[in-house]
Amino acid sequence: MTIYFVGAGVGGVDYLTVKAHGLITRADVIIYDALADSQILDLAPAHCLKVDVGKRGGRVSTSQQKINQMLVDYGLQYSLVIRLKSGDPGIFGRLHPELEAIAPYNISYELIPGISSVLAAPLWAGMSLTEKHQGRHFAVVSGHDPDVLDWSILASIDTLVILMGARNLPLIIDYLLGCDRSSDSSIIIIKNAGRKDQQIWQGNLSNMMDQVQGISLSPCVIVISNIIS
Amino acid sequence: MTIYFVGAGVGGVDYLTVKAHGLITRADVIIYDALADSQILDLAPAHCLKVDVGKRGGRVSTSQQKINQMLVDYGLQYSLVIRLKSGDPGIFGRLHPELEAIAPYNISYELIPGISSVLAAPLWAGMSLTEKHQGRHFAVVSGHDPDVLDWSILASIDTLVILMGARNLPLIIDYLLGCDRSSDSSIIIIKNAGRKDQQIWQGNLSNMMDQVQGISLSPCVIVISNIIS
Repeated sequence: MTIYFVGAGVGGVDYLTVKAHGLITRADVIIYDALADSQILDLAPAHCLKVDVGKRGGRVSTSQQKINQMLVDYGLQYSLVIRLKSGDPGIFGRLHPELEAIAPYNISYELIPGISSVLAAPLWAGMSLTEKHQGRHFAVVSGHDPDVLDWSILASIDTLVILMGARNLPLIIDYLLGCDRSSDSSIIIIKNAGRKDQQIWQGNLSNMMDQVQGISLSPCVIVISNIIS
Repeated sequence: MTIYFVGAGVGGVDYLTVKAHGLITRADVIIYDALADSQILDLAPAHCLKVDVGKRGGRVSTSQQKINQMLVDYGLQYSLVIRLKSGDPGIFGRLHPELEAIAPYNISYELIPGISSVLAAPLWAGMSLTEKHQGRHFAVVSGHDPDVLDWSILASIDTLVILMGARNLPLIIDYLLGCDRSSDSSIIIIKNAGRKDQQIWQGNLSNMMDQVQGISLSPCVIVISNIIS
């Protein structure tokens, strides 16, 4: 009786880890979030119970409480349970509420990292997150609620990687410019990273909104760097 | 004639991506950095030429210029060349000098992300890099030369992940305390992440140096968070 919290990575079966791939082919139960690639689920054996708990489009997703209960129920009943999360389970993956939920029970667990779009999307877009002079550090932040963040700090970080920032992009750009980030700073938006329909927009803080006006950008990774463009 | 810049990940064969695994089993040439796990190289076919260009212990490593020249020479000569880098090739991987070196030649290339210790080490140590209130953002930085960094900015980031910081740990802690980071801030050091000899030290900014005095910590990932401990 083990629950594996597995990162499904980004970009489909090719970018699963060897370990994740092996576990999925032997799983009794897979509780999964919205995944970019359904072929990952096709790897599971015929007897495997596949439970979709992810948000997709406008549909209501399964509550965290219900997911927690499933983990306990299935974890006590089956020998190989996978909690499959997009990207890496440690990055905005609500991992700890789920670990806390199973803690009172005698269920062992293991954490399996996955390829995160935080690192892979910029790589595929040809943008290095670390460069000798212009990229001494990078910060990763959720763009879900920009009002709670201290942008005077974030504006001083060489490279910013913003997840879940599509909807608030105009606000994020305003905050950065308001904190004296140069309007020439390069910004790259990678939509559907690692998928066949991956799209990339490049520009700077002053001209990006003109490029993407009216375009649905989600899900995307936004990278803002010190490179002038 | 393709050069694949491949992330070897961290933690051995299990944590290669499926794609990296497949490429290595078909490689004509592998030019590799110091790797945690030699079993990765054992996957290569018998005819594969394996070239070690990594630093290890006190030995002098191959110069960047020589690595660049190898990439051009082998890239023009063989059909499947792998430039195997530890972790993810985009993170402190000196990727762009190598891409620039092959740019004038008609050599195609592909970038294959890998599991980075930046994300995997904290995950294995049970430390989430993102938490609703205490971890709204995290920053990744090299501890190689702390004097060139603006610690007043870094000290305000919720969670810091420091690579290559073993030697400068006392200096890094001094800088953070000098910039009013709380001495109660939790610090975790993960040595040899993902390996059988993985070691973890936990403490806070005021007591960690007492714990690790005289211990060789390299290679390690240092994580400093807002959690009080």
